[in-house]
Amino acid sequence: MPVDQAAAIEVTAYRWVPPMARGFVKDMRIRWALEEIGLPYRVRLVGGAGGEKAPEHLADQPFGQVPVLRDGDLTLFESGAILVHLGARDERLLPGDPAQRDRAIGWTFAALNSVEPMTQALLLARHTSEGQPWQAEAVAAMRPYAEKRIGQLAAVLGNREWLEDRFTIGDLAMVDVLRAAPEPDLVAAHANLAAYVARATARPAFQAAMAAQLADFDSNPA
Amino acid sequence: MPVDQAAAIEVTAYRWVPPMARGFVKDMRIRWALEEIGLPYRVRLVGGAGGEKAPEHLADQPFGQVPVLRDGDLTLFESGAILVHLGARDERLLPGDPAQRDRAIGWTFAALNSVEPMTQALLLARHTSEGQPWQAEAVAAMRPYAEKRIGQLAAVLGNREWLEDRFTIGDLAMVDVLRAAPEPDLVAAHANLAAYVARATARPAFQAAMAAQLADFDSNPA
Repeated sequence: MPVDQAAAIEVTAYRWVPPMARGFVKDMRIRWALEEIGLPYRVRLVGGAGGEKAPEHLADQPFGQVPVLRDGDLTLFESGAILVHLGARDERLLPGDPAQRDRAIGWTFAALNSVEPMTQALLLARHTSEGQPWQAEAVAAMRPYAEKRIGQLAAVLGNREWLEDRFTIGDLAMVDVLRAAPEPDLVAAHANLAAYVARATARPAFQAAMAAQLADFDSNPA
Repeated sequence: MPVDQAAAIEVTAYRWVPPMARGFVKDMRIRWALEEIGLPYRVRLVGGAGGEKAPEHLADQPFGQVPVLRDGDLTLFESGAILVHLGARDERLLPGDPAQRDRAIGWTFAALNSVEPMTQALLLARHTSEGQPWQAEAVAAMRPYAEKRIGQLAAVLGNREWLEDRFTIGDLAMVDVLRAAPEPDLVAAHANLAAYVARATARPAFQAAMAAQLADFDSNPA
């Protein structure tokens, strides 16, 4: 179990989030990657029950988000960049071959810049119309953007196990985006994508990361 | 002028987009990077006046987007990943020092996963409510997400010239996102950010890239 408060690598996580967000906070991506390569990490919890961000966290992370990675003298934020950093340390996350590495980084950006913005826009359409008579219309109008991207992803995945010929950080990022899609039928509509998400989240490293994130929330209930 | 149809590197671009999108299509990011390092590239135009994507393009780019880069045997999509690839070839785009490189990649992801999704959600809120009586409300409700991120970015930039101590692909990606913000006052509200965008877009490489993108549209008016 890589959580070890004496470890050289530090990952920040929120001390508290609403119950529905637990298991989905983005330090999951980094915990998962670290579990894949068995690299121990310590956790620094930031924020409080009010959701306020600690000033010392904002100094590290200008958007007040998690995760932040500390690795020696390096302080790094953005989950995608942290995945690339960890990938450079271990070929189990990112192939050493330059072309294969580039393609895996390509899928990492695809997850975070082509797919997630659409699922996030759908989530925001719902949030920003809460309680309004036009909510159903606003959400229905935004849904096709997420549907289209996810359909395109299902088409390119086809019957393959992973997006390239082996598991990489590109799959890790993509699956983390897909499992958080605000309307589960977006993914469930594509049997191959649903199986892809199931296959990835069944990995022992994902399961260990999930248990670790939930354990941190359980031990900080307020 | 790096456009050279005999060059080894190929960049795809759309043959046609509506006039308001010209100068903002995402092959700009790659043309700009290539101009920064004086690396010649050829252009492959895809799609047609109807906006339809050519099947051979979808085979390269599952989301039907541009750009795609061809460099030797490598076919790579996602503008962020292409920037990282080009950065690995030339330190003028991405420092060789591992920590500096990681930080620059961090800003690249910040541009594309923390800032652009919010400006894009605002744009989508406008598109998806076109002609609806609730459009103004929907747009106003979405705007604070973009405002918040851009304000946080202005705070972290402060009086510095670039996001780190020199220009990198992180600045290139961030400026390309900011200049496309759907409501220009989002950036103009912060004098330092407006100056940052002006400083970056005044670079000869940006100007050359813009001229090249516009020239391709001018020579393919239909």
